[in-house]
Amino acid sequence: MKQNSEGKVVIIGGDAAGMSAASKIRREQPNREIIVFEKSQYTSYSACGVPYYISGTVETFDELIVRSPATFRQKYNIDVRTEHLVLSVDPENNRINILDKKADKTFWENYDQLLIATGAKAFCPDLPGTNAEGVFGISTLKSGINLERYLEEKKPRKAVIVGGGYIGLEMAEALLIRGLNVSLVNRQPQVMNTLDPDMGAMVSDAMRNLGVSLYLGEELKAFSVIDGKVSGVITDKRTIETDIVVLGMGSSPNTDFLKGSGIALGMRGAIKVNGQMQTNLPNIWAAGDCAETLHLVSKMHVHIALGTIANKTGVVAGSSIAGEKAIFPGVVGTAVCKVCKYEVARTGLLERDLQKLGIDYATATITALTRAHYYPGAKNITVKLLAEKNSGRLLGGQIIGEEDAAKRIDVLATALTHNLTLQNIMDLDLSYAPPFSPVWDPVQTAARKLINDI
Amino acid sequence: MKQNSEGKVVIIGGDAAGMSAASKIRREQPNREIIVFEKSQYTSYSACGVPYYISGTVETFDELIVRSPATFRQKYNIDVRTEHLVLSVDPENNRINILDKKADKTFWENYDQLLIATGAKAFCPDLPGTNAEGVFGISTLKSGINLERYLEEKKPRKAVIVGGGYIGLEMAEALLIRGLNVSLVNRQPQVMNTLDPDMGAMVSDAMRNLGVSLYLGEELKAFSVIDGKVSGVITDKRTIETDIVVLGMGSSPNTDFLKGSGIALGMRGAIKVNGQMQTNLPNIWAAGDCAETLHLVSKMHVHIALGTIANKTGVVAGSSIAGEKAIFPGVVGTAVCKVCKYEVARTGLLERDLQKLGIDYATATITALTRAHYYPGAKNITVKLLAEKNSGRLLGGQIIGEEDAAKRIDVLATALTHNLTLQNIMDLDLSYAPPFSPVWDPVQTAARKLINDI
Repeated sequence: MKQNSEGKVVIIGGDAAGMSAASKIRREQPNREIIVFEKSQYTSYSACGVPYYISGTVETFDELIVRSPATFRQKYNIDVRTEHLVLSVDPENNRINILDKKADKTFWENYDQLLIATGAKAFCPDLPGTNAEGVFGISTLKSGINLERYLEEKKPRKAVIVGGGYIGLEMAEALLIRGLNVSLVNRQPQVMNTLDPDMGAMVSDAMRNLGVSLYLGEELKAFSVIDGKVSGVITDKRTIETDIVVLGMGSSPNTDFLKGSGIALGMRGAIKVNGQMQTNLPNIWAAGDCAETLHLVSKMHVHIALGTIANKTGVVAGSSIAGEKAIFPGVVGTAVCKVCKYEVARTGLLERDLQKLGIDYATATITALTRAHYYPGAKNITVKLLAEKNSGRLLGGQIIGEEDAAKRIDVLATALTHNLTLQNIMDLDLSYAPPFSPVWDPVQTAARKLINDI
Repeated sequence: MKQNSEGKVVIIGGDAAGMSAASKIRREQPNREIIVFEKSQYTSYSACGVPYYISGTVETFDELIVRSPATFRQKYNIDVRTEHLVLSVDPENNRINILDKKADKTFWENYDQLLIATGAKAFCPDLPGTNAEGVFGISTLKSGINLERYLEEKKPRKAVIVGGGYIGLEMAEALLIRGLNVSLVNRQPQVMNTLDPDMGAMVSDAMRNLGVSLYLGEELKAFSVIDGKVSGVITDKRTIETDIVVLGMGSSPNTDFLKGSGIALGMRGAIKVNGQMQTNLPNIWAAGDCAETLHLVSKMHVHIALGTIANKTGVVAGSSIAGEKAIFPGVVGTAVCKVCKYEVARTGLLERDLQKLGIDYATATITALTRAHYYPGAKNITVKLLAEKNSGRLLGGQIIGEEDAAKRIDVLATALTHNLTLQNIMDLDLSYAPPFSPVWDPVQTAARKLINDI
């Protein structure tokens, strides 16, 4: 068998993970053959930027594209083939079957090393009316462009968002900025189910402050449709009239095409990988939103679809394929989100995670200011910490606030990754000047409270 | 001998360190006798806030006071005696000699445990004209109030700041906001000698952009004086006409009154202490700007006068005196500073520190954006990292940028404290959303560059 570092590389998927890998391989191996099959017209775009394109904060979708297929072909000598959908993988014969969408024909392509970087797709429930005009899932640039055109052409006035996660909240901001009347339906009793319910309740209140009508603890049952166009969202409790619907019901890995290939799937159908981003088959690799990740606090495998992880795992997969030693150690579940003036951040485990794991934990929540109390513009910031009872080891952190709140989660993410205790956090030499922080950073104030409580 | 945790506590100094200690003791020991002698009229004020009071950003100096002497007396049963200057310590007889400034008489006070928290004083050079009207040192609230009154009454139009450190830069901002014509004289070839010269040069450029006339590499020789009032600053190269002078030439510990007491002094005359904040004499403790600190990267003792350290060491001293186990582990030299729209942050060691220590190091500097490239309001941020050549262990970091730049130093401070390598930094699960960061946080982009360079 050839070394990883020799032979033709074929990559399925031309966004963050795939193109990070392709670029890394090209840097290390200037002459290696690299072919990328991408089902859309676009490469290397920021899917995370789509809500800001919808809101008009970002004026054209071109701005979201980091590098175009032409740039990859001309400047990096990477053979990017857009509008090519991979239909199946045949590991026994080291080949994949591809649909050329423009030519409308299928063909086989051989590989020496294969990287699967097919990302995730927005979850779309199989309910009456799902396919009506005016119902949008948001996951790709294409889906964002479709929604933006619809907003521009049809000028809808009412929107219902289904789902209270990051996408739901960011889309609520986008549609509020566009002047729509926004409602949000969420199955859980609070938005932001990636926070503990007490912190989620603060975000629910923030959403209401922004003018969003919340329908919490309600389940989506169907869409009402008139003349093929959506006219309402039907929950187990009511019908909410609307002109458009945006689905933010989570995402699932794009791995259906791997059925029967022998490539092992794990959590929620995400591809199982080791630290080198290698699948169970030695010359097949996976990275990005289609792959599993190790959670460094719970030590469990998780599926988290985020740009940071896609970029990092893409680089590691590229390094592995180029014959370099590289390891992606895992994640601690860090994420941030902005909704108008509010910032929400989280890292680590939630109370429900700790209860499932049977870990004896304690929590403390404090509200402090983002600047010295006398410095103008200081905003409230609420920090909740979770720690192991005997050891005082940090297990998770959640932050809600206005300006300058969210990025403070990074200290907690660093602390979690390296098993720091609350006392370690108290002892950190964090920066202070009146425009930036109180003399005790809010994360330290929270740590101090939890030490006293434990 | 009595335990620490019994008997009368006397504290010299009623600001951050002294009152943090007093408050901590009171929480743990509701009935213990605590007397605080403070030479000024004020307790627990934010000296770091003085420049913002001068600029008018903070309207009244009352806002800088966290708790007044009356509050401490009434709500905390702490016997605070203002306008009492301690003249000497007599450890053999467990007593201190005190000047009651209002009554103008001296007396002795006995202690069982003594905490010295006398802070630091602005360095004032012994040069011709130093005592002229219009020459101000800035260290205490009193000195700030004096300067503010002078600005209000005399309406000076030109100011010269001597010294290009934090105080000098913050005072430059304050006087620019007040509409003065500001010049700055600095002995070193760049401002911010706590940065490497290449990063200092960026801050020098920023100061010039703000309209400050810089006289770098020039040494203060004297002040010209007309009718008892300062009229110019004389350097080794020129005379700069001015109406007022603000000295920002660093500070030194207020420990002159300890001469002959047998209390051991170290770096720059700061009091030597162990991790419990105990001096060489068992029932005498020290905390805050008058005490030494251990630098966790160089393992050397240092004297750093900063509010964060004063608060932390005050709490540890209070815990020790109350009989609790507590340790102040040390610092990594983190500091931040805002000058108008610019933010400057640093942590760890500089190139010159590493050269002195004989450590084989490498550096990398990158300029990135504070937000996703397409997100409006993204600003430049320059990050310089220093790391050990073989191990890749982080040794220091410096950040210059506009909005949202400075606080990113906290991840580097955390990394330094726990001996993380550049690869560890690359692997961190830091937060990302387009309004907050590029997908690779700038500190990770810098780490990646330095890994490639090493």
